[in-house]
Amino acid sequence: MNKYTFENRREALRIELLRRNLDAIIVSHAANRYYLSGFELHDPQCNETAGWLVITADGRQRLMTDPRYEDAARRLLPAEDVFVYSGKRWDAIIGCLKGLDVKAFAFEPRAMSIFEHEKLHDQVTLIPAENVVEKLRIIKDADEIERMKASCALNHRLMAHLESQLKPGRTELEIAWEIERFFRENGASELAFDSIVGVGPNAALPHARPDTTTLRENELVLVDTGCRYQGYNSDQTRTFWVGENPSDRFKATKDLVVQAQQAAIDILRPGLTFVEAYRAALAVFEKAAAADRFTHGLGHGIGLETHEPPSLSAQADGVLQPGMVVTVEPGLYYPDWGGIRWEYMALITENGCEIM
Amino acid sequence: MNKYTFENRREALRIELLRRNLDAIIVSHAANRYYLSGFELHDPQCNETAGWLVITADGRQRLMTDPRYEDAARRLLPAEDVFVYSGKRWDAIIGCLKGLDVKAFAFEPRAMSIFEHEKLHDQVTLIPAENVVEKLRIIKDADEIERMKASCALNHRLMAHLESQLKPGRTELEIAWEIERFFRENGASELAFDSIVGVGPNAALPHARPDTTTLRENELVLVDTGCRYQGYNSDQTRTFWVGENPSDRFKATKDLVVQAQQAAIDILRPGLTFVEAYRAALAVFEKAAAADRFTHGLGHGIGLETHEPPSLSAQADGVLQPGMVVTVEPGLYYPDWGGIRWEYMALITENGCEIM
Repeated sequence: MNKYTFENRREALRIELLRRNLDAIIVSHAANRYYLSGFELHDPQCNETAGWLVITADGRQRLMTDPRYEDAARRLLPAEDVFVYSGKRWDAIIGCLKGLDVKAFAFEPRAMSIFEHEKLHDQVTLIPAENVVEKLRIIKDADEIERMKASCALNHRLMAHLESQLKPGRTELEIAWEIERFFRENGASELAFDSIVGVGPNAALPHARPDTTTLRENELVLVDTGCRYQGYNSDQTRTFWVGENPSDRFKATKDLVVQAQQAAIDILRPGLTFVEAYRAALAVFEKAAAADRFTHGLGHGIGLETHEPPSLSAQADGVLQPGMVVTVEPGLYYPDWGGIRWEYMALITENGCEIM
Repeated sequence: MNKYTFENRREALRIELLRRNLDAIIVSHAANRYYLSGFELHDPQCNETAGWLVITADGRQRLMTDPRYEDAARRLLPAEDVFVYSGKRWDAIIGCLKGLDVKAFAFEPRAMSIFEHEKLHDQVTLIPAENVVEKLRIIKDADEIERMKASCALNHRLMAHLESQLKPGRTELEIAWEIERFFRENGASELAFDSIVGVGPNAALPHARPDTTTLRENELVLVDTGCRYQGYNSDQTRTFWVGENPSDRFKATKDLVVQAQQAAIDILRPGLTFVEAYRAALAVFEKAAAADRFTHGLGHGIGLETHEPPSLSAQADGVLQPGMVVTVEPGLYYPDWGGIRWEYMALITENGCEIM
């Protein structure tokens, strides 16, 4: 990823702006801002921005930020494109926007608060525009795919490492920290999301928070974890058996989940609707009269964010295209017993898909 | 912190709603939601909520969330107050809100996006209301103060531990990971923010990101870090000298910064304006003709969020009150040489302040 990567992406965005007849866009969503400029993948807090990027269809750009980030901004963009506000922030931002002299600014309605909109809308013309940058991000380029494969490779190494770590007596929290330490000491910048480590019935909670529950001999443990490596997230789930002899129920349930996953993977290809992918897994569970225990969607897009478009679920609208990366993670949950989920990431190729 | 803590806070919120003549409020800001219910301190991503809490002035409440969080929600609120949506989320949310049969819903304008507002505003009456929950949160109660002291104590232990770790040849990134590991292995749930570890000129960047720069003998290193412990954040900065004999410039600059910090601490008390606190430190720098090198505010409130009201800066408006917790962190920055910042946290007491 170099300066040209970001310039090329901004150029693709400009073509999209022209196609939509938009003069300019205010990019306030952190992952979109980073995708287009390399500037700060994270905001310091969800309610505190590191800065907004403005791109005009005629080829200009401004990065508006505060003095904390001036140095970082200047390393990425020409000095004249970096606009540092301090003190009266909103007056400064309005001044910068007006200085661009465009008729209207598109903005990201999911990433602009009512508070921010109120500060601006009397001063400049604002037009909501959804999925402008997301439409570009949903198709991963060669560089992104390489990074995502590296992130996945580290995730696979973690899962292999874990097999020796899942010993009776260790707590879910200890395993979660073991995971985080392994990722960080092997090059990841952070977790992709809070790890789920669920023993027995805890595994039936789709969003179990690790606690002091200990791993037990002859009991299952579900691990759903991922890392951010070279900027990109990975996400994998396995359900392990602690002990030598998995129970028949564990084996049968796991086989069914893996079979549902394989049924979806077998048909993933460009042109397949998101719903069809979901239904392929669901059909396996329906045949086994277990569909009511499959309580979530099949998977989600992943990249700079852990959850990003598309969504492979019953309500989803759209079709797979080459370059999309999605998780495939069916699961079955039984509150009194436990849950089994199995998750891979799949890159949609020209003819099908490739498990990463 | 028990069930009654949250019930008491919701009761205080109801009094505030009545005072403002509001029927109900939609609490969508994660830290506010957690403060009032104990439900999920973090959203999974900034653009993905774990749920919204609705409180009515007449004593009712609803927690609207998705199936992932149903179990967590039911552990905190009566079953009839937990509203789980799936599938057509917005129809479900609108149905839940309408079911409460109130004239209007206040909402948090900094924590509701234009997208979300658009989904609701034709269906229910929405009124922006700022700082409703924040007004409660700004005054820490006894339980919160105890947790913040525990968080600070761990931060002090980290700083003591660091002194033996700051050896020539280690990189900023290695030190940052050493910090995170120490915090996590001693009970912290996470960092309060990305640690700053800046060697020499890197310390002049107020938001330096640790990189592969190595610590050098006879060079300064600035460390700004904090942890979340028992839910609450701490935030401390020290600037260390690597080697036995600090340079005269380091000693003189550090003395000046510590003197500015002490000048502010000396006057912190209920009734002092936020600007006066800032100016007390600034005045010390002005006297030494160094004020142009003090490029940020004096400090910020801290608690469930690392940055929360109040702001002790040149533009701030308001006065200190007992129970507020603020950082006091003057600094001086010289791009070619380095920077020195020194930071404590202060609890405002009845008569002055207490360094935590």
